[in-house]
Amino acid sequence: MKHTLAMAGFGGMAGWHYDLIERIDGLTVAGIWDVKPERREYARSRNIHVYQSLEDLLADQSVDLVLVATPNDVHKSIAIQAMEAGKNVVSEKPVTLSSQDLREMIQASERTGRFLTVHQNRRWDEDFLSVKKLLDEGRLGEIFRLESRVHGSRGIPGDWRQEKEHGGGMVLDWGVHLLDQALLLFPGVKLETVYATLTNVTNQLVDDGFTADLGFANGVHMLVEVGTSNFISLPRWYVLGRDGTAMIEDWGREVRIVRALGTDEKDVVPVRTAAGLTKTMAPRRDDSIHSEEEPEVSSDIREFYQNVMAVLEGREESRIKLDEAARVMRLMEAVFQSAEEKRVVRFEE
Amino acid sequence: MKHTLAMAGFGGMAGWHYDLIERIDGLTVAGIWDVKPERREYARSRNIHVYQSLEDLLADQSVDLVLVATPNDVHKSIAIQAMEAGKNVVSEKPVTLSSQDLREMIQASERTGRFLTVHQNRRWDEDFLSVKKLLDEGRLGEIFRLESRVHGSRGIPGDWRQEKEHGGGMVLDWGVHLLDQALLLFPGVKLETVYATLTNVTNQLVDDGFTADLGFANGVHMLVEVGTSNFISLPRWYVLGRDGTAMIEDWGREVRIVRALGTDEKDVVPVRTAAGLTKTMAPRRDDSIHSEEEPEVSSDIREFYQNVMAVLEGREESRIKLDEAARVMRLMEAVFQSAEEKRVVRFEE
Repeated sequence: MKHTLAMAGFGGMAGWHYDLIERIDGLTVAGIWDVKPERREYARSRNIHVYQSLEDLLADQSVDLVLVATPNDVHKSIAIQAMEAGKNVVSEKPVTLSSQDLREMIQASERTGRFLTVHQNRRWDEDFLSVKKLLDEGRLGEIFRLESRVHGSRGIPGDWRQEKEHGGGMVLDWGVHLLDQALLLFPGVKLETVYATLTNVTNQLVDDGFTADLGFANGVHMLVEVGTSNFISLPRWYVLGRDGTAMIEDWGREVRIVRALGTDEKDVVPVRTAAGLTKTMAPRRDDSIHSEEEPEVSSDIREFYQNVMAVLEGREESRIKLDEAARVMRLMEAVFQSAEEKRVVRFEE
Repeated sequence: MKHTLAMAGFGGMAGWHYDLIERIDGLTVAGIWDVKPERREYARSRNIHVYQSLEDLLADQSVDLVLVATPNDVHKSIAIQAMEAGKNVVSEKPVTLSSQDLREMIQASERTGRFLTVHQNRRWDEDFLSVKKLLDEGRLGEIFRLESRVHGSRGIPGDWRQEKEHGGGMVLDWGVHLLDQALLLFPGVKLETVYATLTNVTNQLVDDGFTADLGFANGVHMLVEVGTSNFISLPRWYVLGRDGTAMIEDWGREVRIVRALGTDEKDVVPVRTAAGLTKTMAPRRDDSIHSEEEPEVSSDIREFYQNVMAVLEGREESRIKLDEAARVMRLMEAVFQSAEEKRVVRFEE
């Protein structure tokens, strides 16, 4: 079966979608619409059809799927309008700005019978999949702490992403990915507590970074952090299990794992510092640990649209479910609430 | 003026003190007492005088200073007994197990007119002094976040340090150092909030690690963390300022600083990952940043006892004040309370 997609909004991410779809069998792009003349001009320069208006786009009977890749604050209205025009919808993340708005979108999906999903593309990032595999295989023993960080030093983009009313800020931009990943690591486990802090280093209008300590019902604490004024980056992932530690430095899939060999180490040589000594913190001798690199995990982001088409054809369930998107949205709201009120938010009990 | 010290308790740290005092002019060790026969035997093998009992030690009129280096739970009773016998007292850290106990010790000092201080030796560690210097010089611009970590992988020592009633656990053992350092970084600034988590990975009786987010009144958040099941260590210090980032990998004084040059970087090349792209998190080009190593900071831990002697002679104020020790004790109590109640503790308002 063939599917035809039109793009509402044609900024940087839509261009990325366009290139992706060119590599997907059975899916073609009919055209785009953007409120900005320069983006429409850019599309024409690439020989991409430009609709006269959003209404014109939605009236195209050849189109069965609309990608909403506008600033975050208009995802909701365009998605609902598209579903009411009979289209299925892929929304860029964050799907919208509040749980209330998302409920209205889900109600529109139910009312119209149209499919709605969210482009949570970083579920396919290989660093995340490597951590998920590591946990599922239990190679570090019982996990007790995880840290997931993304660090940059460029501040936040200078466009609508700096404006609160358009849904700017790093919680909504990057947090939506990292928090979504965090909620997938322990299926069926409740997230009990959220404690968060926000930064406003380069921008007073929206957060340009955050930390969130997530306390799960299985006792695991996970630190999720985004920073945009970090001139030295800490590792992307840091995972602590009873039997060992894993680290992923960057976006890659190279996982460094160090585990105890279970051999008793006698005659520990204390570390002497300028002002003291410590046996507790002395590094292990090489013969008491085992270091390895995790085998590769590879992914194919084309699966996102392949799954969307399979859902439309009744062959598969959606890989990205609306109740998952709603949980992430509630979690982002809990992050804002915790930071504002300087307290722990009880999330699921 | 000459001073004579006797040691109550002669375990590993007392041995460290003994070696230190041998390098200090004007201070000699008269002898030791320990409840364990094997420690007394060890002292004799080193030709160190062993008293018949603690009472015998305290009756020695040549002794004007007593080091209390016993398990944590008996610091208080020995220190009070020593002050009532007319001795000045240096207590190992943590000075005692609760704010109430510390108040009794301070009252004993006031009642007897004897000097009491705490061996917060890690105020002289060069990594800490390097961070303090960096902040005082303002070279990173306004600081907005710090992270101070100590990671080991040996669990906690198998002696009394695993027992709650003796004051075991990592908050009291290592937290007392890192939290003391944290409270010295911003003189006069109130610590408003404390959020903490504890781990019990290798031990169910006492904490074998913790995290504490400290929210200061100047807006700075500081993460203080101790881990003893960390087979890969994260850096000892990580400091974020508006103008740059600093990192110290381990116990040394090598500070890596990366700062923005203020040059506008055009044509950012996005990072492409398996499932997306990001300009925000793209690394900076080398021509837009400046990297350097901080000049050395060196310290001399002999200053601790030199200061103690100067206090006894009325020449100096104590470098380690009892109200500072009391603040650290209250902070450790707030860490336990926050972790137990899973909430933010309001500390100073």
